[in-house]
Amino acid sequence: MPSSTAPSARTRVRRLPERAQYDADTVAAIVDAAMICTVAFQIDGVVHAIPTLHWREGEHLYIHGAKASRMLTALTAGEACVTIALADGLVLARSAMHHSMNYRSVVIYGRFEPVTEPAHKLGSLRAFIEGLYPGRWDRLRPISDKELNATALLRIALDEASAKVRDWGVKDDAEDLGWPVWAGVIPLRTVQGEPLTEADSVLAEVPPTRFAPPPR
Amino acid sequence: MPSSTAPSARTRVRRLPERAQYDADTVAAIVDAAMICTVAFQIDGVVHAIPTLHWREGEHLYIHGAKASRMLTALTAGEACVTIALADGLVLARSAMHHSMNYRSVVIYGRFEPVTEPAHKLGSLRAFIEGLYPGRWDRLRPISDKELNATALLRIALDEASAKVRDWGVKDDAEDLGWPVWAGVIPLRTVQGEPLTEADSVLAEVPPTRFAPPPR
Repeated sequence: MPSSTAPSARTRVRRLPERAQYDADTVAAIVDAAMICTVAFQIDGVVHAIPTLHWREGEHLYIHGAKASRMLTALTAGEACVTIALADGLVLARSAMHHSMNYRSVVIYGRFEPVTEPAHKLGSLRAFIEGLYPGRWDRLRPISDKELNATALLRIALDEASAKVRDWGVKDDAEDLGWPVWAGVIPLRTVQGEPLTEADSVLAEVPPTRFAPPPR
Repeated sequence: MPSSTAPSARTRVRRLPERAQYDADTVAAIVDAAMICTVAFQIDGVVHAIPTLHWREGEHLYIHGAKASRMLTALTAGEACVTIALADGLVLARSAMHHSMNYRSVVIYGRFEPVTEPAHKLGSLRAFIEGLYPGRWDRLRPISDKELNATALLRIALDEASAKVRDWGVKDDAEDLGWPVWAGVIPLRTVQGEPLTEADSVLAEVPPTRFAPPPR
């Protein structure tokens, strides 16, 4: 059920609060719809923000990386802010001021925790691959213990998060409605291009992914 | 000319440095190709990261917002980190470990400065609209002094920035090349969907944008 109450003070949307949503289902759906998040954190007072792939399992957002990664080390030592933004459409108004964008975004606050238990790591990496490429995990050369060990997994709870959504039409000033310029929304979406099969790929059939196939 | 030297210590790419690029042309091209950046900053020691629209003019990245925005106020009071990430393709290998993504990303460090001179603001907002919709600015209901005054513009120099690019094929372990699974790259791109003209739009002709038209 949609909730209009922020789970914490730092989560409360200040700017355009009418676009804010705080319910877990909305947050989860936006996390799932995106593939890349930006993870912001500080090291010695300097703010860093790094884009990385993510996936969701239950009430956590997961990221992965090399065990030696400076970012992953810093993340378990302090608070982080994770941001996701999806551009859904261009909003063209009669005035420059009312041009806008339709979008879905999420901001998550909290601290990442390492996921170190091997069976948990294995299950999570499988969920990551399967989320992008349904059915692929079992066809791959099985992951080795060495590879699993070299991969660091971190997760952050989604309980301190806010979503922001704009998904409506043009809002112009009443006196501008007759202005002779096109007004409307141009949706945007991500699609696949033509797959590029490696020259030495044993199989030629391109596997399914979560993205739309190339336009014909 | 491509440069392999980071402009500052905090800008140096630590993880997968073979993907790092520091030349201004590469950074500018990625800034131009993206529409949304994430701006990370801190207020009273808490790190925030907020997605926002951006555009480039010369050697600066510009953002805008309402004059009362908490973020815009905080940004001129301390250091920020701006991140841009574009997902260009899915890289499918024979092992889970070597799955990857083709992408272009930029990380910029520095401090935003306010742009307050009215003619500069007007020219910048024009560049913002024209960058998305070539030819549109002069057809819009002209911006009022009140609107211009209510809009805050900030810019950050691109001189302390790094880019990271992966734009190649699959890198599998030699002993995995015969594994019977598809290997290759599936490009991703953003395209327009069917425009939704407002019911009261005086004109029916959809204007050009910087994005590809809807697939036919």
